[in-house]
Amino acid sequence: MANDKKLVEDITSMDVDFAQWYTDVVRKAELCDYSSVKGCMILEPAGFAIWEMIQSELDKRFKATGVENCAMPMFIPEGLLQKEKDHVEGFAPEVAWVTHGGYEQLQERLCVRPTSETLFCDYYERKIHSYRDLPKLLNQWCSVVRWEKTTRPFLRSREFWWQEGHTAHATAEEAKERTEQMLKLYANFCEEVLAIPVVSGQKTEKEQFAGAEATYTIEALMHDGQALQSGTSHNFGDGFARAFGIQYTDKDNKLQYVHQTSWGVSTRIIGAIIMVHGDNEGLKLPPHIAPTQIIICPVMQQKAGVLDKANELKDTLTKAGFRVKLDDRDKTPGFKFADSEMRGIPLRIEIGPRDIENGQAVLVRRDTHEKTTASLDNIAESAGQLLEDIQNSMYEAAKSHLEKHTFSAQNIDEMEHILDEQKGFVKAMWCGSRECEEAVKEKTGASSRCIPFKQEHIGDCCVNCGKPASKMVYWGRAY
Amino acid sequence: MANDKKLVEDITSMDVDFAQWYTDVVRKAELCDYSSVKGCMILEPAGFAIWEMIQSELDKRFKATGVENCAMPMFIPEGLLQKEKDHVEGFAPEVAWVTHGGYEQLQERLCVRPTSETLFCDYYERKIHSYRDLPKLLNQWCSVVRWEKTTRPFLRSREFWWQEGHTAHATAEEAKERTEQMLKLYANFCEEVLAIPVVSGQKTEKEQFAGAEATYTIEALMHDGQALQSGTSHNFGDGFARAFGIQYTDKDNKLQYVHQTSWGVSTRIIGAIIMVHGDNEGLKLPPHIAPTQIIICPVMQQKAGVLDKANELKDTLTKAGFRVKLDDRDKTPGFKFADSEMRGIPLRIEIGPRDIENGQAVLVRRDTHEKTTASLDNIAESAGQLLEDIQNSMYEAAKSHLEKHTFSAQNIDEMEHILDEQKGFVKAMWCGSRECEEAVKEKTGASSRCIPFKQEHIGDCCVNCGKPASKMVYWGRAY
Repeated sequence: MANDKKLVEDITSMDVDFAQWYTDVVRKAELCDYSSVKGCMILEPAGFAIWEMIQSELDKRFKATGVENCAMPMFIPEGLLQKEKDHVEGFAPEVAWVTHGGYEQLQERLCVRPTSETLFCDYYERKIHSYRDLPKLLNQWCSVVRWEKTTRPFLRSREFWWQEGHTAHATAEEAKERTEQMLKLYANFCEEVLAIPVVSGQKTEKEQFAGAEATYTIEALMHDGQALQSGTSHNFGDGFARAFGIQYTDKDNKLQYVHQTSWGVSTRIIGAIIMVHGDNEGLKLPPHIAPTQIIICPVMQQKAGVLDKANELKDTLTKAGFRVKLDDRDKTPGFKFADSEMRGIPLRIEIGPRDIENGQAVLVRRDTHEKTTASLDNIAESAGQLLEDIQNSMYEAAKSHLEKHTFSAQNIDEMEHILDEQKGFVKAMWCGSRECEEAVKEKTGASSRCIPFKQEHIGDCCVNCGKPASKMVYWGRAY
Repeated sequence: MANDKKLVEDITSMDVDFAQWYTDVVRKAELCDYSSVKGCMILEPAGFAIWEMIQSELDKRFKATGVENCAMPMFIPEGLLQKEKDHVEGFAPEVAWVTHGGYEQLQERLCVRPTSETLFCDYYERKIHSYRDLPKLLNQWCSVVRWEKTTRPFLRSREFWWQEGHTAHATAEEAKERTEQMLKLYANFCEEVLAIPVVSGQKTEKEQFAGAEATYTIEALMHDGQALQSGTSHNFGDGFARAFGIQYTDKDNKLQYVHQTSWGVSTRIIGAIIMVHGDNEGLKLPPHIAPTQIIICPVMQQKAGVLDKANELKDTLTKAGFRVKLDDRDKTPGFKFADSEMRGIPLRIEIGPRDIENGQAVLVRRDTHEKTTASLDNIAESAGQLLEDIQNSMYEAAKSHLEKHTFSAQNIDEMEHILDEQKGFVKAMWCGSRECEEAVKEKTGASSRCIPFKQEHIGDCCVNCGKPASKMVYWGRAY
């Protein structure tokens, strides 16, 4: 058994070194590999399969709100990027530039898209003429490039995969509603599918997206008490429309500017799944997002009938609608058990000669390691029930962790102490000034801030300057 | 009615100017838009929806053969691209080069992938150690960039979307089998889903992929008699493995090189769908690939009950598993009919007050314009039957066109005459020499050649030199 466990013993304990634990899980579960392109990662099959599940589930939800997919070019001409002033200032320092096509130098440099507002605006300017053309509700699944200095798998890399939705509306109200609708959609997705509870709210003006009027965010709390921004939704008002001249004729035959939004979720969220749910055995995937929900591990598989029965079981469960794999490799059961746990598969079914004799199998939950025995006659029902239980318990565990690690502070010292010692979110009042925002960040290292929709009155004074405050903010140290 | 038809009258007749007809269909059906990046296109929602259908269907078929998806970086360092000599010679003249990240010049230039053999090889070199690690069966869906001089929507653009499968095997036999298996998969997909019959075979040595030992291709015949390469599958042997040092330890503990394949289908195939099936009314989509299979056009929709009934019909058909849209825009029925035909929707259902009274609806086939009346009681069954009929007739029509436009030639003059006057494929014998291959191309303009798996003996002598010949080749003028 000691030898069988070797596989998982290679994972650093999260209490010893959380960053190393994270890297170990990413590498051992083969989610992600470094590539020979500095700062760029390879999404390996196990990691990409999670992204495919995320895509499939989000895409369904987007389409249910009327969104259509499209594909824009990966390049943006330098002149186009420069059309909206705040936007180019925000992104120019971190884009990759294409200067040559074949052996020839390009007349105008092209950047590899860091985000595609400018391309969608350019397109909308040509496509939108009348109020009948609105709203436009487009999205694309693609990768984008930002030339980051320091990178970490999933959390920050020079190329990452995401979806970016870009909408254009007739009125400011509609744009605001869409911005909030998509944030809500993201929050529901995180809670229902990823079993990750989030704090929803608005970013401060300083932190909003380059070119936006308002940016909304969902923030999740990792196991180590650090925050991770897990999705954003931006209301652009008519700023981009004015810069790009996107106008339509309204019902009274008057020219009006459109109002726009954009919203995105990226492969970063896989980092959240790892750091919210994982443990010292490795990855722990919620059943609703797990590419493999059930792994069947035959015991004494060389005995006649065992593999046949295991295959039969696989067919039964697959037909019942579960995502199932059978581990029939020439390895010991102990190795397979540890391996399946390290890879985060929610439910393991062990079946050997004695189980078959008794018409049963052993079901082992990944989240609690709890073992139960179930009759083969209604195994699909038992497995389905267990998977739902696992999904719910994982959400409850994450929610309880979030609640236990959300604190209140009345002053800066208290805030710093909490962030140092207890880790987590700190709720505190804020006067709304840029100076205090920067001071709090500098003094406490709280790099993340979110003005939650659900405001609480936890005091009267700004945590920094002591002046009257009306806004309650979630602060946290962020990835 | 004249005014209602205006929409489709904008499409140039294919007999007058086939190229302009193609462009008109692409633009009017809003499949594809030009972008402000020269030579790059925007896949608009209607075009991208077709690509999504293709992806979903192919992906399912790939996975059924054990293939897993992943994602490689979009960049390739110059040094990595240069590792395989033939490969770099084939692609270097047409790649886009990234030279700067942010404000800094890169130490080594990166090209934007024109294809990803080198990235997969680099990854496999690190991942493959033992025979237990084989086979590796990976695929990615992405876009690639080739700096083409002249571009056309779908057929040739600087950026295009595709899938590229890359596999590594223990033996040469396995690699050969996989290459053939994937070509067969593509051919079946074209015939069963796209209703496009293809000629399957091998490319000549001159035309094979840069770095490949053998390249297989499927060739389709467009309505104008030109050929379009619609999918390729390459057998690399151990050439890349030797260049990249991809070795494994076999069961006898000996080091061996792996054998590799790659295979791809791109958005080009949407061009084939347009040019095989389209007519002077516009696009004509086979039901198996149509993002919208049925469009419901209410007649006198302002009358009480008509829209309710149309919506009810939509729900019924959606629940029955069809992809359905309701056109309830404030336009005349005539406009809607022409619009739905131009967009290629296979089946239109017209329903007005009198139909409702009679408990029926009118079903109109896009392919034959044939009208039938069906009872609302079993409308799903009627629609399903019609859609299958349409799919089959479209395949039969395309097959009959291919057969009627496939000729045989015994000499160059005959071949040239056929290509000029009758258009289509010309079967001819070939001695196998590079000189004759080039001479035939130069003399006749036949830029496409495919050595079909199904060989026929149509003569003894090479069509060019008259020397003994054993290979029969399909020649064609190609897109």
